[in-house]
Order: sequence, then C-alpha cells, then structure tokens
Amino acid sequence: MDSIGIDIGGTKIAGALVAEDGSIIRHTRRPTPAADGEAILDAVAAMVTELASDGSPRPVGVAAPGFIDLARSTVYHAPNIDWHNEPVRARLRERLPGWEISLDNDANAAGWAEWRFGAGRAVHDMVLLTIGTGVGGAIVTAGQLLRGGFGAAGELGHMLLVPGGRLCGCGRHGCLEQYGSGRALMRYAVELADAGGIGQGLARLRADRGAIDAEGFAELARSGDTGALEALRELGDRLGQAAASLSAILDPELFVLGGGVSIAGDLLVDPVRDAYLAHLPARGSRPEASFAIAALGNDAGVVGAADLARSAGAISRAAD
Amino acid sequence: MDSIGIDIGGTKIAGALVAEDGSIIRHTRRPTPAADGEAILDAVAAMVTELASDGSPRPVGVAAPGFIDLARSTVYHAPNIDWHNEPVRARLRERLPGWEISLDNDANAAGWAEWRFGAGRAVHDMVLLTIGTGVGGAIVTAGQLLRGGFGAAGELGHMLLVPGGRLCGCGRHGCLEQYGSGRALMRYAVELADAGGIGQGLARLRADRGAIDAEGFAELARSGDTGALEALRELGDRLGQAAASLSAILDPELFVLGGGVSIAGDLLVDPVRDAYLAHLPARGSRPEASFAIAALGNDAGVVGAADLARSAGAISRAAD
Repeated sequence: MDSIGIDIGGTKIAGALVAEDGSIIRHTRRPTPAADGEAILDAVAAMVTELASDGSPRPVGVAAPGFIDLARSTVYHAPNIDWHNEPVRARLRERLPGWEISLDNDANAAGWAEWRFGAGRAVHDMVLLTIGTGVGGAIVTAGQLLRGGFGAAGELGHMLLVPGGRLCGCGRHGCLEQYGSGRALMRYAVELADAGGIGQGLARLRADRGAIDAEGFAELARSGDTGALEALRELGDRLGQAAASLSAILDPELFVLGGGVSIAGDLLVDPVRDAYLAHLPARGSRPEASFAIAALGNDAGVVGAADLARSAGAISRAAD
Repeated sequence: MDSIGIDIGGTKIAGALVAEDGSIIRHTRRPTPAADGEAILDAVAAMVTELASDGSPRPVGVAAPGFIDLARSTVYHAPNIDWHNEPVRARLRERLPGWEISLDNDANAAGWAEWRFGAGRAVHDMVLLTIGTGVGGAIVTAGQLLRGGFGAAGELGHMLLVPGGRLCGCGRHGCLEQYGSGRALMRYAVELADAGGIGQGLARLRADRGAIDAEGFAELARSGDTGALEALRELGDRLGQAAASLSAILDPELFVLGGGVSIAGDLLVDPVRDAYLAHLPARGSRPEASFAIAALGNDAGVVGAADLARSAGAISRAAD
C-alpha cells in the first residue's frame, strides 16, 4: 500500500505520497509557519488531504525535528517550534479523523530511508551522519531503527567530541556538532583565510561568506582551492574521529554521509575515511566499516517517514 | 531447558550449568592456561562434559574476550590468547561432537545476563559499563543484544573521550578506558597523593599500591578518606561524561555499572550520575537515564553465555 510522508523542516514542510518501493508518486511543499505549532499542524493536515487525492485514509508518517517519544505520538521538545510535551499525533487525528498517524525524528526518518532504499540498502547495520548546518544522525542495527529507551537515540551531533570544548546550542560543551557541521566547515575556512597563505578562493569566500552555501564551497574545493580542501580535511578529521568512536560503540558496516555538505562527495568521504582508519581502535584486529554518500538527497525525510508509517522501523532483511 | 555457560577470563575459566530462570545449578572453574588457545579449548571441553554430568548434549555458550564474528563462530582477535581468525566453534565441535555451541564477547554476555536476570530486568534499553582493570561494555536495545555489523559492537572502553589524550592499548589515543577504568582510578589516587594535602589513607595506599584492590579502595572511601573519595569523583566525572555521550547516541533507560570497581556502590554511582546530568545534551528537554550497580557480580558472564546459547540475544519482552 502507498503511504504518506511529511517532513517538517525549518523553512519548508515537504510532503509526498510514496509507493512501497520507496518511489515518490506525488509531492507537495509549503513554507513552514515559523514557530507556530498550530499553524504547522493545519498545514500538515491540508497537505495530507491534498496528497491523498482519492480521499481514502492511508498510513501517514510525520518527521519532525527534536525529541519524540517511543510511542511515536508526542514531541517532547522541538527546536524553533512551540511544542513542549505536545501530543502531536492526537492533534493531527483531530484534524484527520480515521487516519493512522505516527511521528518520527526527521534524521531517523532520513536514515531509515537510506537503509531501506538508498545508500544502505545492501547492509544490515548502518549509521547516517547528516552534515548540514548542524549534525544529525540515525542508527539502523539488525534491521531495526534504533530508537533507544525513550525515543531520543541517534542524536549523533551531540556525542561528546572535545571535553570542555566549544559551547553547543544544547547547553553542553564539546559536542560533535561544533566540530563536524557545515557551520564548523565555514569556521575552519575563515580561520584558514585569517591565517593567510591559502588560495584566493577562500579569501573571496571570506569577503562574501554570508552568501556561501555548501554547493559553492564544494565547487571551490573541486576547482582545487587549497584552503577549501584543507577546511574539508579538518572537518573530515573530526567526523572520522567520531566515526571511529561510533565503530567502537555500534560497529556498523557502513557510514552514510548526508546533509548539505555531502554534495562535496569524495572530497568529504576521503578525509573522513582517512581519519576513521587512523583513529579506529584495534585497527587490524577487527573489520572496518565502509563510507558512502547518501543517495536520496532531500527526499530522504518524506520517503523515510512514509515507510516508517507502514513498517514502524523494523524489517527482517534476509542475509545475503 | 538448562544450558551451559563458559566464561574464559584472563586468570580463570568459569563454567556453570544454568537453569532457564538464570539460576546456577552447578558450577566449576579452572585456571586459564596462559596464552595457549589449544589448552584453553581442551579445558572448555572438559568443563562442559563435567557440568553435563548426565552426558546429554545441551546448548553451550562460550564467552571470550576480544572480537567475535556475527555468526558467533570465530574469534577475530583475543587479547592474550594466540587466536587470530580462529574458528573456535568448529574447534570445540571437534571436541564435543553433537553439541550446539555458540560464542559471544564476554562483556556482551555479562550485559545480556544483567538485562535478562539482573539490574536491567525491568527495562527495555540498557547499557552496561564494566569498570575493572579496563572498561568493557554491552548494549541491549529493544530486547536485542546490539552486536553491530561485524559482531564487534559494545566496546565502550574504546569510545573516544579525549582526542589526542593518553595512549591506549588498542593503539589509539584518548579512549574512555584510559580515564574511566580501575587502573585510571589508581592513577588519580596516586596523583592526589603526590599533590599532597589528602588523607593518610591514600598515602598508605600509595606506599602499598601494588597490593591495593578495588575492595580495599572502596573500604577506604567508605571510611570517609578524602583522597579516595576524590579519586572516585574524578573517575565518576569521566564515566558520567561518557554516559551523557552514550545517551545522545543510544538513549538507554538505564546504565548498569559493573566490574571490580562497582563494589564501591553509591560512592561510584553518585559521582557518575552527577556528571551525567551536568553533561547531558539538552537536559530538561528530554528524559534522563537511571543508574544502578550490576546485580550478578562475577556470575554474569557464565549466566549470560548460557542464556545466549538458548536465546541468541533476542527476546521479545512485553511492554509493562
């Protein structure tokens, strides 16, 4: 049966009707009504009705930022939305009587999509790291999305990387997000420009840094700009350290790198893999994980949410 | 059906015939033939035959240190034993024809036992940290022992705590084991004694440190010795940082603290919990884990190995 996935982002809400094979039948999007939870719920309900043009109820999966409970019904806390212990599923059911609705964290939905239909479709155990403005993550192990005891697992941007390090938005010091995000990449680039002796490209980037996006940065790196490549290497070094630590904990077969910065492709993957191998505990005595760029791009959230609405995040995948 | 668990330790091999409820029907032990894999296999086979006094084959679970493959048949690498990609299950089957044999990592077996029958029996998601000479670990999530993609998950002593920090036996710098183990506790105590101004107890400990064990240390702390308490607090601070990071990744309901140092009880749990709460990302916006001391002591390895021989590490536990 097809199902509907809705992905509530910071600037837009994306929605899609998704077939069982993960392909998108129809999609839609709207700007996110900033901070206003009620308006977001109205928008989600309208998008669901719009996507199900025949009017018949289907499973609906909603991906949202923040912490969501294990019952997949309540948002404990979402950044930039006025939801605190908000029973989002019940609120949506009021608007969509008779529909089955479930909630998931947005990064978890994206990770599930990559595992089901994307870069992780051939493995059993996978970790997704999304490198955008911040760092997000998801863990799939033995065919299950790892939700943890309260539903808040996979917040990989907030694993501790540097005790006593940079203050993070989460209130703690030294989180991976402060060292492995797109924002950190920009900081490395500016620091390199300040230090001088790097290519003209980063000097221009610095003059114009408000407007630089991940795509522009990746182009600069692909053109061979020493500073951009060095900043990517610095970012990759931190992400590779984190990946080595995650291998000690989770031992995935595959790390998938997604988010805006992953447009850099091998210029990101190579330094991450190099640092991973340099920092892997007991290297040589244990198997090593592989690395790949996410395959589903911006569709991962809606595709994952739609599939989670059907599968609930547990699939028995026969051993190859 | 009862089953047999064997736990291969650094100094002794423990074995038990274990009932389905986790209780030990009969046990036995032998010194570990140092480094000699063949002699260890001979000892294990003899212990199995001894424990199954009626001679009828039962499931046998063997817990061993080191990395064990996902098929639970081969030891990739074990510290202090000459096993490298050693097909231990096949070698044991040669000695015990007709018996079903499976292998697990020793800390994973202990964690499974605590989750099934011990401190974690009331929760779904649990992390075990064993604080002995080194630091070991195990993860149970959604009723499954987390083995990872290659079988090497749960090596929590080798999660990265301090980038560029102390060199670890695994070849990497800054592993948790260098900051959160019994060996680190001793180091903290000696450093405090060197710095002066601490209680007579630690000065005596320092003079006599070769002979101090976890029990002696815990007694000193319980007697109110300032230095011993401060060293435990320093250890707890590091372990709490690691637990906060593990909450971001795994979000367990419960952390169970085991291993020799856990004999200190609340004098260990309290500082770990304090540091955990101080370092928890987004505290106040998400649920918090609980902390408990392991309940099964030295029996956890044999009980877990015996149960894993039956259950393979996946149990559906009805929601409360």
